[in-house]
Amino acid sequence: MTRTIRPEPLTAKAFAPFGDVLAASGDADKIINQGLCSRFHDRARLDFTEGRAGISIFDAVPRSLPHDLDMMERHPDGSQAFVPMHQNDWLVIVAADADGTPGAPRAFVASQGQGVNFHRGTWHGVLTPLAPPGLFAVIDRIGPGDNLEEHWFETPWRVTAN
Amino acid sequence: MTRTIRPEPLTAKAFAPFGDVLAASGDADKIINQGLCSRFHDRARLDFTEGRAGISIFDAVPRSLPHDLDMMERHPDGSQAFVPMHQNDWLVIVAADADGTPGAPRAFVASQGQGVNFHRGTWHGVLTPLAPPGLFAVIDRIGPGDNLEEHWFETPWRVTAN
Repeated sequence: MTRTIRPEPLTAKAFAPFGDVLAASGDADKIINQGLCSRFHDRARLDFTEGRAGISIFDAVPRSLPHDLDMMERHPDGSQAFVPMHQNDWLVIVAADADGTPGAPRAFVASQGQGVNFHRGTWHGVLTPLAPPGLFAVIDRIGPGDNLEEHWFETPWRVTAN
Repeated sequence: MTRTIRPEPLTAKAFAPFGDVLAASGDADKIINQGLCSRFHDRARLDFTEGRAGISIFDAVPRSLPHDLDMMERHPDGSQAFVPMHQNDWLVIVAADADGTPGAPRAFVASQGQGVNFHRGTWHGVLTPLAPPGLFAVIDRIGPGDNLEEHWFETPWRVTAN
């Protein structure tokens, strides 16, 4: 029997247990450049053990809905931010920890102008664009060691098209 | 007399004296996620004095070419990366230092899939999208103090439409 997940819209409130939504939302913290630019300041909780922040570029193969989720991963030593370099929807899957494995996953559809930052150690699906290009800037930990735990589900979850 | 600057395409080689181009260029450093994602690893020289990296979102008013440049700025205490959250062209203006003020500026047109990281202390123009939305993720220094020097030109420079 396939277990299904219905995707939700991505909101800061719903996503708060898992990480930060990176978006120009709410009031700007500062107006700069002679009034021509709004700065939404320091919106991610960056958190690295024995390492530092770095910027990498990910180019991922687009998927489509329904999407079968057979694996989730987490990074015990650092937060990880995904910033879309495009305006397309993309899929964010997260789960609370349940005794060292992911609990029931939740799926969010991020839309134009929304990135996310997974807090350190948060179970999440791999980067899942829903349209080309699958280009993202990733701000995560640069440091020694593997910093990766994977959990493979015996029965995959299916994220529905809604 | 207006001084003019002809914009150049943004390439890593031409931009190297000023910073890093953030793009999925060249061979991937690592293939991850069961072959479905290419990682172009740690492409920015992040460099902060008395501070740490943070992620902010900028929402800037789009400009158009020709563009008049009356001011450049630099951040003595930190690098600053601009990552477009869209696929539109945008304008990057930089200058070498000439005795504490900007030398002759150079203008680059960044296109789809290109972000930049200005090295610490590099003279640059403010964030200049050329189409809506003017949304960018900015990875720069979070820390005490002003971290800003501005230079206003007596005679503005004009970046031509080419």
